[in-house]
Amino acid sequence: MMQPFRDFAAIRAAAVNLPAADADAVAAARARDQQLTKPTGALARLEDCVFHLAGWQRRGIPCLDAVRIAVFAGNHGVAARGVSAYPADVTMQMVANFERGGAAINQLAILHGATLSVTALELERPTQDFTAHAAMTETECLAAINAGAEAVPPNCDLLVPGEMGIGNTTAAAALAAALHGGDAASWVGPGTGVAGDALDNKIRVVDAALGFHRAALGDPLQALRLVGGRELAALFGAVLMARLQSVPVLLDGFVVGAAAAVLARLNPAGLDHCLAGHVSAEPGHRRLLAALGKPALLDLGMRLGEGAGAAVAVGLLKAAVVCHAGMATFAEASVSQRS
Amino acid sequence: MMQPFRDFAAIRAAAVNLPAADADAVAAARARDQQLTKPTGALARLEDCVFHLAGWQRRGIPCLDAVRIAVFAGNHGVAARGVSAYPADVTMQMVANFERGGAAINQLAILHGATLSVTALELERPTQDFTAHAAMTETECLAAINAGAEAVPPNCDLLVPGEMGIGNTTAAAALAAALHGGDAASWVGPGTGVAGDALDNKIRVVDAALGFHRAALGDPLQALRLVGGRELAALFGAVLMARLQSVPVLLDGFVVGAAAAVLARLNPAGLDHCLAGHVSAEPGHRRLLAALGKPALLDLGMRLGEGAGAAVAVGLLKAAVVCHAGMATFAEASVSQRS
Repeated sequence: MMQPFRDFAAIRAAAVNLPAADADAVAAARARDQQLTKPTGALARLEDCVFHLAGWQRRGIPCLDAVRIAVFAGNHGVAARGVSAYPADVTMQMVANFERGGAAINQLAILHGATLSVTALELERPTQDFTAHAAMTETECLAAINAGAEAVPPNCDLLVPGEMGIGNTTAAAALAAALHGGDAASWVGPGTGVAGDALDNKIRVVDAALGFHRAALGDPLQALRLVGGRELAALFGAVLMARLQSVPVLLDGFVVGAAAAVLARLNPAGLDHCLAGHVSAEPGHRRLLAALGKPALLDLGMRLGEGAGAAVAVGLLKAAVVCHAGMATFAEASVSQRS
Repeated sequence: MMQPFRDFAAIRAAAVNLPAADADAVAAARARDQQLTKPTGALARLEDCVFHLAGWQRRGIPCLDAVRIAVFAGNHGVAARGVSAYPADVTMQMVANFERGGAAINQLAILHGATLSVTALELERPTQDFTAHAAMTETECLAAINAGAEAVPPNCDLLVPGEMGIGNTTAAAALAAALHGGDAASWVGPGTGVAGDALDNKIRVVDAALGFHRAALGDPLQALRLVGGRELAALFGAVLMARLQSVPVLLDGFVVGAAAAVLARLNPAGLDHCLAGHVSAEPGHRRLLAALGKPALLDLGMRLGEGAGAAVAVGLLKAAVVCHAGMATFAEASVSQRS
């Protein structure tokens, strides 16, 4: 287990000095793929997934025996501004639901044989309302980043980060705007289901936050601290620590994407270990994935959070891996190659 | 087990008198979905899949314990015309590979706990070259349709039909053109990987077949007999028998789609029990799914056949079903509903 980050400077230093994928493992996976009993390229994106996993797992035949879904939960001062269709109490209630096994992510974890960790980040102490304050102090933000980093287990084949936090699509919209530009209206969406006047209010709230913090938002880590939230900071920490340990990551929806985008802003190659599992119905997510150059594996209209979209996509990675590992070669099966 | 079809007239009679989905089961599934601990609609297309399975399985909480993948293999006289990148021997070699467990579909069946049946349809006796003959006599076509119907097991929760047959994207293109209009160029694609002159030749072959049989192609069953193939006839028989037994079907790629489209032409509601699992890289498939009004669950660029695209999508249906069956309700979990 790596040590936690001492300060923002240590995070910046780590983010600019990231390991690359193992080119030999990718070459071995490509060579094996050419010999399998199928037309070259016929498994298409499943083959790309295999090469991705091979490179980051550093083995020619990747496996998905140890998949960890890591859910982070936080509460948001901005929730008091009427940005969500649900009361803020639901964050803590859903954490209890995760712990009792009653949520969608629990069922998906069981289906795929994944382990699930749930990290509740000081739920009784919401972040400050970021329309008029910093969401977090540097100490608070660092603690949340380290909580995320510590949730990446050693010897993990794949990390699927997820989140829960009433109000957190508001924070994600503010963070995405801070990182990628554009006004609030281009990043704000219905979240759990706000519409009409409530959606207009959500846009005004994000515009207010962007105005209030404008001078400091050019720095990605400061943007995370000022308009993010504890679970977003933890997600960033988890994605960074996964990279440092060469663990591939399957990204979920808008909140996970906005948190991960901080790393892409610190280092253009920072998300090379990440695949996008699912593009959310939250409209900002499609825009964000385009900006990150990460086409999603799934487009099912889901908008649940919890890591659920990516958890569904774990099934695609499993399909890719079992084909690569289990199929016969042309020689083994005495099947003729192209005429 | 239902009796096989005596003749084409019996098939026509069955096709115009098909059972509908169970509206009470759909209503029960919708009512339960409203109570699960998630925002309404947040699982989106996964919810639609649950309602589909509920209606055809005739139970409010559908299950996928008994998933059958049924692969049909046939050989094609038209393969002698250079329409494939692979020699015709590969059909029989791949059937042996299926039987030894070495193909992609074997790995996917194991992954999802599905059973796999492989029906080789007189491989030593290819259909006639349909550019100048009927592909099959009525007796041959009926035998293949019945072989497909008999491959649908009793008490099946989901049927995933697949296929193998060197030359069969040529037959599928001819059949799709016969059923939906358009010239050969709008339906022919690379199949296992033909390009350039070989692709031009494939288009000419299909145009020749459409010209030779033009007068008889207005009848969907005759089109299946004249320009189809044994595995396409079996696929049609399997999709029809599944409907008669109220078994939901997950469709795979272009060849399965073209065969299933025969039923849609006999009865506009004929494919109401079918979901489209994956849209193939074969360009005609996207056009065909649009004509059938069946948006695919997956778009991964796959073009393998075997039922593989749909078999990957079984994982999505499993995800949908485990969430529906296993999630806690708001009341059970003491989670607050919308404020």
